[in-house]
Amino acid sequence: MAFEPQPPATSPQPPAVVLLSGGLDSYTAAAITKADGFSIYALTVQYGQRHAREVDAARAVASALGVERHLELDVDLRAIGGSSLTSDAPVPRDRDLGAAGIPSTYVPARNTIFLSLALGWAEVLGATDLVIGVNALDYSGYPDCRPDFIRAFEHVAGVATRAGVEGARFRVHAPLIALSKADIIRRGMALGLDYTLTHSCYAPDAGGRPCGRCDSCVLRAKGFAEAGVADPLLLR
Amino acid sequence: MAFEPQPPATSPQPPAVVLLSGGLDSYTAAAITKADGFSIYALTVQYGQRHAREVDAARAVASALGVERHLELDVDLRAIGGSSLTSDAPVPRDRDLGAAGIPSTYVPARNTIFLSLALGWAEVLGATDLVIGVNALDYSGYPDCRPDFIRAFEHVAGVATRAGVEGARFRVHAPLIALSKADIIRRGMALGLDYTLTHSCYAPDAGGRPCGRCDSCVLRAKGFAEAGVADPLLLR
Repeated sequence: MAFEPQPPATSPQPPAVVLLSGGLDSYTAAAITKADGFSIYALTVQYGQRHAREVDAARAVASALGVERHLELDVDLRAIGGSSLTSDAPVPRDRDLGAAGIPSTYVPARNTIFLSLALGWAEVLGATDLVIGVNALDYSGYPDCRPDFIRAFEHVAGVATRAGVEGARFRVHAPLIALSKADIIRRGMALGLDYTLTHSCYAPDAGGRPCGRCDSCVLRAKGFAEAGVADPLLLR
Repeated sequence: MAFEPQPPATSPQPPAVVLLSGGLDSYTAAAITKADGFSIYALTVQYGQRHAREVDAARAVASALGVERHLELDVDLRAIGGSSLTSDAPVPRDRDLGAAGIPSTYVPARNTIFLSLALGWAEVLGATDLVIGVNALDYSGYPDCRPDFIRAFEHVAGVATRAGVEGARFRVHAPLIALSKADIIRRGMALGLDYTLTHSCYAPDAGGRPCGRCDSCVLRAKGFAEAGVADPLLLR
């Protein structure tokens, strides 16, 4: 956890603040952003999620990506609760992913909170590009993973900040939003990503091994199957 | 700091999540909200502000208001910096409040972060009313205190949440936004508020006494003077 205030970005490439969870999607989104010519300022939020192993993965991924800086912030959303990821309620397993409704793994306002923190850091860095690895195709139906949300937050960013008032135009990039999980994996493989570094499971066992049955595991497995490659995490 | 997940609101009055800083404005905004018939769920964010005494004031104010619950969350924005309130940079004194520009006490994305956290808690409580004591008249020129920002965040709340997708209409109340500081104080006095409980100064001394020269002290003094009453805090 860094407590030093962050100086402005100095890399010759434009800075982008990328939300990095340690999962497959945000790793791929960060790599795409880097390939697009940005220097990466990775932000990981420890929000009291039960799969805290994710944060170790975020560190490994940040290191593999060669990010400019990696900032970790603590916001304990267990105090708020309302999600099976931030309480002791069981994470659903073997759920029908086509079922209507939003599952209990939805964390109230999570992506709004995360993007707000990213926005604050971006303003200090002098960055106007935020990146979030949401995906509205092979996903769990979370409302804050949809294009409407991304556009609405972009508008907030413009009116909420000194930079916006002074004319900066914030962009929230969601490079995966229209991709299938298989397409995300194909794109990542083409970029040479090492998916053994990532962690996706919502409810890993004490040794950190994925359960194979939560939404996140099922979507990951479906993605690798459709991409026609084995998940390297399961080959170890 | 509460770590227990918050159960839904149960009071017969509709719940409102009120951002409570311990300052004069948020105390008054909360009291107005209570007078309007809401039960108050007060949220205080410890964000690493140098005037941490504010948090003690928030507790006293919450108690005086008889809030339903008071939740404190820690988000250390010193890690981000970019403000004289969250770094060791000096807080400006004797500033010309009519000067153009946004002062160094602006905290990047602060109200966006605070409202995001309020939104998450509101969703868990089943609340659709958020309250923030921002003021766009006698204020320091912060962009996230303006009506445009409030409206933009209301829109985000609707598209970001399960509740919004299911048809709830979130409202962000800013009952002070068009009031002068004197009007705010008059309103609070009429509601019987005890302003000795509040803390406004950005840079109090070690004993917690206000400096009298930062924007927040100056605006407070101007408000009491224009309201024609003595600041009870200074009479103690």
